[in-house]
Amino acid sequence: MSTTAAQGFVAAGVTAGIKASGRPDLALVVNTGPDKVCAAVYTSNRFQAAPVLWSKGVTASGVLDAVVLNSGGANACTGADGLADSKATAQLVASAIGTTPDRVAVCSTGLIGVRLPMDAITRGVSIAAETLDAQGGSDAAQAIMTTDTVPKTAVESVDGWTVGGMAKGAGMLAPALATMLVVVTTDAVLTAAEADAALREATRLTFDRTDSDGCMSTNDTVILMASGASGVRPSTEAFTEALTAVCGDLASQLLADAEGAAHDIAIHVEKAATEDDALDVARCIARSNLFKCAVFGNDPNWGRVLAAAGTSKATFDPDAVSVSFNGVEVFTSGGLGADRSLVDLKSSRDVDVTVDLAAGDAYATVWTNDLTYDYVKENAEYSS
Amino acid sequence: MSTTAAQGFVAAGVTAGIKASGRPDLALVVNTGPDKVCAAVYTSNRFQAAPVLWSKGVTASGVLDAVVLNSGGANACTGADGLADSKATAQLVASAIGTTPDRVAVCSTGLIGVRLPMDAITRGVSIAAETLDAQGGSDAAQAIMTTDTVPKTAVESVDGWTVGGMAKGAGMLAPALATMLVVVTTDAVLTAAEADAALREATRLTFDRTDSDGCMSTNDTVILMASGASGVRPSTEAFTEALTAVCGDLASQLLADAEGAAHDIAIHVEKAATEDDALDVARCIARSNLFKCAVFGNDPNWGRVLAAAGTSKATFDPDAVSVSFNGVEVFTSGGLGADRSLVDLKSSRDVDVTVDLAAGDAYATVWTNDLTYDYVKENAEYSS
Repeated sequence: MSTTAAQGFVAAGVTAGIKASGRPDLALVVNTGPDKVCAAVYTSNRFQAAPVLWSKGVTASGVLDAVVLNSGGANACTGADGLADSKATAQLVASAIGTTPDRVAVCSTGLIGVRLPMDAITRGVSIAAETLDAQGGSDAAQAIMTTDTVPKTAVESVDGWTVGGMAKGAGMLAPALATMLVVVTTDAVLTAAEADAALREATRLTFDRTDSDGCMSTNDTVILMASGASGVRPSTEAFTEALTAVCGDLASQLLADAEGAAHDIAIHVEKAATEDDALDVARCIARSNLFKCAVFGNDPNWGRVLAAAGTSKATFDPDAVSVSFNGVEVFTSGGLGADRSLVDLKSSRDVDVTVDLAAGDAYATVWTNDLTYDYVKENAEYSS
Repeated sequence: MSTTAAQGFVAAGVTAGIKASGRPDLALVVNTGPDKVCAAVYTSNRFQAAPVLWSKGVTASGVLDAVVLNSGGANACTGADGLADSKATAQLVASAIGTTPDRVAVCSTGLIGVRLPMDAITRGVSIAAETLDAQGGSDAAQAIMTTDTVPKTAVESVDGWTVGGMAKGAGMLAPALATMLVVVTTDAVLTAAEADAALREATRLTFDRTDSDGCMSTNDTVILMASGASGVRPSTEAFTEALTAVCGDLASQLLADAEGAAHDIAIHVEKAATEDDALDVARCIARSNLFKCAVFGNDPNWGRVLAAAGTSKATFDPDAVSVSFNGVEVFTSGGLGADRSLVDLKSSRDVDVTVDLAAGDAYATVWTNDLTYDYVKENAEYSS
C-alpha cells in the first residue's frame, strides 16, 4: 500500500510516455489533509538536479500538497531550461489538483543530461490527476522504477496511526543518500519541526548508512508528508522509531535489489571511541573494491578488511583489533584467529562482518553489497 | 638495467622457494658506495606490515647498505613473530654482505596474514649474496613480481650520473602509495636530506597520484639509495627532475599492468583554486566505480564525472564547469556540449578526461584505470 497506507493520501502511477519501453513512468502522491506538513532531505552532491533545486525551495516551508515523480529522465545538468521544466511540472500538478506550484515537489530519475519530454509530462500529469486513488500507492511505487527489478514499499502501523512509504533505487547508492527517490507518508499529527527532526534522524541511521558503490547521485530525495488524518499525536520517540523502521526496511530493499549484487553485507564496527569513528571505519571497508570482490569470491578476506580499516582516521590500536565473518573471529586482538575455512559465505546472501576496535563503547553499522561481474556489466552497458 | 644502471650497485634475483610456483621470489640490492645515503617513504595505512615497521626504523638514519625483497608473502598482520622474521631476514643479509642489520631494509609482498617460510628465506639470501652482480638489476626486478605480468624498470641518465629503479605492483594501487615495492638507485652525490626531499617531491607527483582502485596496501615502500659513485653532485632541481621522471615512468608501468584493466585513464583537473582542490576533484573521479565502468563500456559518461566531482570539497561553481573526453568538450560551462558520439574510446587504451573548474590557475593529474570483469575476476579469485 506504500504511500497510501496512511489515511489522508491518494496516489497514482501512470504511463506518460517518457520511457521508450512504454512502462509506467509518472507517479503522483497527494496529501488530502487535514494537515499539509512536510519535511525533506536531499543529496549533498554539489551538482544538484533541477528537481532537487526546485523541491528544496518548495519543501523549506514545511508545507506541501503533493509530490510528482518521473522515471525515464533525471533532468540533471540541464541548466536553466531544466529548472524551468521542473517548475512547469509543478505548475501542471498545481492546476490539476487545485493548489499553487510552491506546494508541489518534483522528483526525477533516469539519464543525466537530457531534457524531459514536456509533452509527455503534461499528458502524464493529466492522466495521473484523474486516477488519484486511496489505493494508488502500489501503482505509484511501480511508476518510479528504473533499473529496479521490484517495487519497494514498507508500512508500519502503531496505535491508530501509520507510516508508509515507497522507494526506487538500485545501485549508485552511497552515504549522504543514494540514487534514490523516497516518499513516506503518515497520518500522525506532527508539526513541521517534529517531522524534520524525525526524518533527519531516520535517514541518518538508514539511507545514509547504505553504501552500495560509494557513488552519490545528483537527484536523491526523501520526502515525508504528514496528513494528521488519524487524529493521533504520537510521542517524538514513537514516531521516530516507526519512521526509522520504514526507512530501514526500504533501505534494505534498495540494497537487496542493487545492480548485480550477489551478497548483502552488514559491516558492524563495535567498541569504537565514538560513533563517528565506528562509521568512518565501516565506510572505509564498505568502499573497498578489493574487499567487495573477495566477498563475491566467497573469501572471508580479513586482510582486506584490515587494509581498508587502516585507511580510516579512527582512534584504535592496530594490535588490539579483532575481525569476525559471520560470527567466526578470524583475526583476534591483532593476531591470527580462527581458520578462514570455518567461515561459510556460500550458503546465504547475507554476510556479517564485525570489527572490534577495542577503543570504547560506540558502534555503527553500514550496509553494502559485493562487487560482481554483473555490477560491471550493468554499469558499463547502462548509461545514467 | 633497473637498480644496477647507476654505478655503485650490485643486485640479484633468485628462487628461494617461497612461491609454490618455483618462480624467482627473492631480490637483493646492495650499495657498494662510496656513499651509503638513503631515503624512503612508506604506506600511510594504519596496519603496517612487519617489513614496513622494520625498514622505517632502519632508513630513518639516512644510511643503508642493502634492501632485501621477497614476493610470495606480505608478512603483514603477523604480529611480533612477523616482526622477528623481518629482523632475522635483515640479520641474514647483514652476515652475508658484512654489515649490521640496522643498515638493511626489508620489503615483502604477497598474501596478508601468513608467516614467511624462514628456511626458504635463509636459503634465498645465501644464494642471492653469492650471485650479486653489477648486471643483476633485471633479475631483481623479476624476483619481486606477484600478479605483475611484466617486470617494471626505468632509467634516466643525465650529465654523467644516472637514476634507475624497479617496481612491482598490479592493482591495489591508491593514493598515499599503493601495493608496490619500489627501489630506486643513483650514483649522484647527495646528502640524506637532499635524497629525502627529492624522494618526497617525486612520489607526491607520481605514485601518490596513481589510483588504480582506491585500495591502499599495508606494505608499500619506496626506497632510494645513492652511492655517489659518479662523483657528480647535481643541482637539487636536476636530481628531483630525473627522479620524478623515473618514478613517473614506473608509476605508468604499474597502472598499465593493473589487474584486468582495459583503459589507462588520465584525469586532468584544470583551473582549480588550489592544487589540493584539483587533486580532490581528480581523486573523487578516479574512485567512482560508475565512471570506471562507463569507460570500460567505452561510454564518455560526463554525468558520472560530474556526479563524482560533486562529492568533492573543492571550490567551484557547478554552472561554470566544463568536461572533455579526449579533447572533445562534452559539457561546457555547466551545460550540454558536443555530442558524446564524437568521442572515441575504443581505438586506444589511453583516455584523457579534463575537468575545467573555472576557479583559478592550479591543476593536478591523477592516473587510474577502468573497472572491468577481469578486475573482479582477479580479485575474487586471488587472495591478497
